[in-house]
Amino acid sequence: MTVSPRPIDLLVTGAAEVATPLGTTPRGGAELGAIRVLEDGAVACHDGEVVAVGPAAELAGAYRATETLDAAGGTIVPGFVDAHTHPVFFGTREDEFEMRVAGRSYVEIARSGGGIAASLEGVRDNSLELLLERLLVRLDRFLAFGTTTVEAKSGYGLTLVDELKCLRAIDTANRAHAVDLVPTFLGAHDFPPEYRGQHEAYVTLLVEEMLPAIAESHLARYCDIFTEAHVFDLEASRRILGRARELGFELRMHVDQLTPLGGAELAAELGAASADHLEHVSDAGIAALAAGGVIPVLCPLVPLYLRETQEAPARRMVNEGLAPALATDFNPGSCYTQSMPEVLTWAALRYGFSAAEALTAATLNAACSLGLGAELGTLEPGKAADLLVLDVDNYHHLTYELGRNPVRAVVKRGRVVLGAAE
Amino acid sequence: MTVSPRPIDLLVTGAAEVATPLGTTPRGGAELGAIRVLEDGAVACHDGEVVAVGPAAELAGAYRATETLDAAGGTIVPGFVDAHTHPVFFGTREDEFEMRVAGRSYVEIARSGGGIAASLEGVRDNSLELLLERLLVRLDRFLAFGTTTVEAKSGYGLTLVDELKCLRAIDTANRAHAVDLVPTFLGAHDFPPEYRGQHEAYVTLLVEEMLPAIAESHLARYCDIFTEAHVFDLEASRRILGRARELGFELRMHVDQLTPLGGAELAAELGAASADHLEHVSDAGIAALAAGGVIPVLCPLVPLYLRETQEAPARRMVNEGLAPALATDFNPGSCYTQSMPEVLTWAALRYGFSAAEALTAATLNAACSLGLGAELGTLEPGKAADLLVLDVDNYHHLTYELGRNPVRAVVKRGRVVLGAAE
Repeated sequence: MTVSPRPIDLLVTGAAEVATPLGTTPRGGAELGAIRVLEDGAVACHDGEVVAVGPAAELAGAYRATETLDAAGGTIVPGFVDAHTHPVFFGTREDEFEMRVAGRSYVEIARSGGGIAASLEGVRDNSLELLLERLLVRLDRFLAFGTTTVEAKSGYGLTLVDELKCLRAIDTANRAHAVDLVPTFLGAHDFPPEYRGQHEAYVTLLVEEMLPAIAESHLARYCDIFTEAHVFDLEASRRILGRARELGFELRMHVDQLTPLGGAELAAELGAASADHLEHVSDAGIAALAAGGVIPVLCPLVPLYLRETQEAPARRMVNEGLAPALATDFNPGSCYTQSMPEVLTWAALRYGFSAAEALTAATLNAACSLGLGAELGTLEPGKAADLLVLDVDNYHHLTYELGRNPVRAVVKRGRVVLGAAE
Repeated sequence: MTVSPRPIDLLVTGAAEVATPLGTTPRGGAELGAIRVLEDGAVACHDGEVVAVGPAAELAGAYRATETLDAAGGTIVPGFVDAHTHPVFFGTREDEFEMRVAGRSYVEIARSGGGIAASLEGVRDNSLELLLERLLVRLDRFLAFGTTTVEAKSGYGLTLVDELKCLRAIDTANRAHAVDLVPTFLGAHDFPPEYRGQHEAYVTLLVEEMLPAIAESHLARYCDIFTEAHVFDLEASRRILGRARELGFELRMHVDQLTPLGGAELAAELGAASADHLEHVSDAGIAALAAGGVIPVLCPLVPLYLRETQEAPARRMVNEGLAPALATDFNPGSCYTQSMPEVLTWAALRYGFSAAEALTAATLNAACSLGLGAELGTLEPGKAADLLVLDVDNYHHLTYELGRNPVRAVVKRGRVVLGAAE
C-alpha cells in the first residue's frame, strides 16, 4: 500500500540537529536539562503549528511541503520566550550608564533623578505613535535575536493615561508585528515624582482608579510590581496585588532584587505566576516558591550590568526543584540588551547552567511563566511552529559562543519571518 | 578667489558624530579617556589614508569624492585593533565549555587532555588549506564586528612544521583578506604531549631549532610565550625570549594570568612590547610595566569565561599611568568570542572604563602595542583610513549596549569593505 505524502505549508530540514525540551509543564530539578536532541532532524509545520518532528528522511517521504526552509547544517531550536522586558520607552540612558561605570550606585542614580524617573518624561512627552515606532524597531531586534514571544511591561508612564498609552502601543505592536507580546501592567514600577512624600496616595490611586480602568481596557493580562523597601514594601504590594487579583489580573513580581525583603514568600502567598530577579532571595523564599509552584524568572545580566555583586542562587533553586525561566529584563537603565543568546551564555557562566538547561529555561519554562506552556516553548505536534535555525552544528554553541548572534532564520506561527525559504 | 574642491576617493559623512583618540603614542592615566568628539563630523579618505576629519559642511565644500558613504546619523570611530587572538585552529571545544560550566577548572581540564592539547590534533591532522578556509571565515566575522587589524598567534601546532603551517595560513589570509593580520609565533604556548616529562628538551628544541627556522621564514613579527609555573616558568621564559630577541623578534608575553609569578616584571626586564592578561599582577609588576613602558593587553572576558574570580586590576594600572590595550583573546577554549563591542562593554562593567577609555584602549593603544601607533588607531590625516560606521547616535553606546553588534559599515584602507557606499 502506498500512502501519498500529506500536503503541509512548511518543512524545515537539512539540520545537523533539532534540540528541544518536551512537554507543557515547567521543568525543574534534574529535568531542567532533559531535552530531546535529534540528529539530522526536521520539523514539519502546517496551519501555524508543528505537525511532526522526526528524521529528515522520514519527514521528506511523509509530507509534501509548499515551502522548504534549508537549515544548511545548522541547529533547530524553539523560538526564545523572553519572560521579562520593559520595551516601551522613548530615549536611551547611556549617560546614566557612564555614571554607574564611574562608581555610582543604582539607588544613588535613582535619587539624583536618574533611573525609572528618567524614562517617565520620554513616555509622557511623546505620542503613542512615536512610542509605537520605537517599539516596532525593538521588536525587529528581538526577532533578529530569535525571540518570538515577549512579555512586555508598561511602567514608564505612571499616570492612568500614560500607562494606557504604553499598553495601547503594546497592543498595536502585537497586532502589527510577527513577535507575540504578552502585556503586563506595571503601574507599581516606582512612585512618580509628583507623588514624592505621598506614597500612600499613589497606592490608593493605583488601587481605586488605575487598576479598575486598566482591567476594563483588557489591555493587560498580568499585573506586576517592584517590591522593594524603597519603593513598594510588602504591605503596599499586598494591597495592590490583592486588588489586581480581584480584578482578574494574573500576577508577576519584581522581588528580592536589591535586598532580602521576603518578596518571594509574598509571591507564593499570592499565587503569582512568576517571581522575578531574586538576587537576594532567602532559603525560606526558595522553599516558598517551590511549595507554591511559582516560576522564578532569572535575569543573569542585570546584576552584572548594575555592577552589583550579589547574583541569584540559581543552582540552589534548581536543586530545590524550581523550574527557572530566563529573561533579558530589557530596559534602558538596568539592562540594555535584547539578546537571549547573550542571556543563555551568561546563565552558563554565572549559574552553571548547561546549554540544555539554559535552553529549557529560555523556551518551555518561560512560556509556562506566561501561561503558554500548552501552546509554546517546545517543538512537538500541536504546539505553535515558532522555531529558529542557528548557524551552528550543535545546540551547545548556544552557551559556548559569546557575543555573537547565531540566529540565521526565524519561523513564527509556521511563517518564515527572517531568512529565506524556497 | 575660488578654490576648486580637491578630488578624493571617499567621503564618509552624514554622521551624528566622529569620535576618535588622537596621536601616535600610547595614552594612559587621565589621557586614556581624552578623545576628540566632533558632532556632524565627516572623514575624507584618499589613497587609503585619512586626509581630513572635520565638520561635514566644510568637508563637503573642500572635497569632491568619487564615492560617498552615508553614515545615516550614526557614529564614526576608528576600526578596532584586536591585540591578542589565537585564530588558527580547526574544531571548536564546546564539550570543554560544558565541563567547565559543570564545575571543572582550567587546569583540571588541561590535565585531562582538554585545553590547548585538544586543539593540537586539529591543527596537526588538517592541511594548510583547511586551516586557511576556517581562518578566512573567522576574518569575515572579525570584520563584521568592526575589527580591522588583528594580532594573530600560532601555537596550536607545537612542532616546527605545524607552527610554520599556522604562520603560513596567517600570511596567506593576510594577503587575501581585508583584515590586516600581525603574525606572532607562539611555539611556547604549552608543552606538546610527546614532550611530557621532557620539558627541558622542548625548550631546547624551541631555542635551537624552531626559533631560528621561524626567524628565517620571516612569517612572524612577534614571539610570544605562556609564562606560568605549570608551563614556561621564569627561567625557561627568559631563555626562550632572550634567544627570540637575538633573532630579531619583538616580544609579547602571557603573564600573571593564573598566579602572580612575576611575569610582568620579566616582560619589563626583556623590553616586551606587551604583557597580556595580568589578572594576578603584583604592585611591583605594575610598577615595572610603568617604568618599562610596556603596554598591558587586557582581556576582560577571559576570567569571566573561565569562571575565575580574579580579574585584572585595570583601574589601578591606569592610575599608575599605564596605557592598556583591550583584546578578545579569541580562541576555542578560554574565550570563544571575536566581538570587540562585547569586550568594550565588559571593560566598562568590570574595569570601570568609560566608553572613551575603552575606545582608546581598543584602537590607539592596541595599535601601539603592535608598533603601529604611527599608522593606525586614530582618525587623523596621514593615518590609515580604517574606520567604522556604528548605527548609534553617540559613541557611549559602544559600552552601553550589551550583546548587540552596532557596526553597520567598515572602511579598510579607504575602501568600503562592509556596508554599501554610493
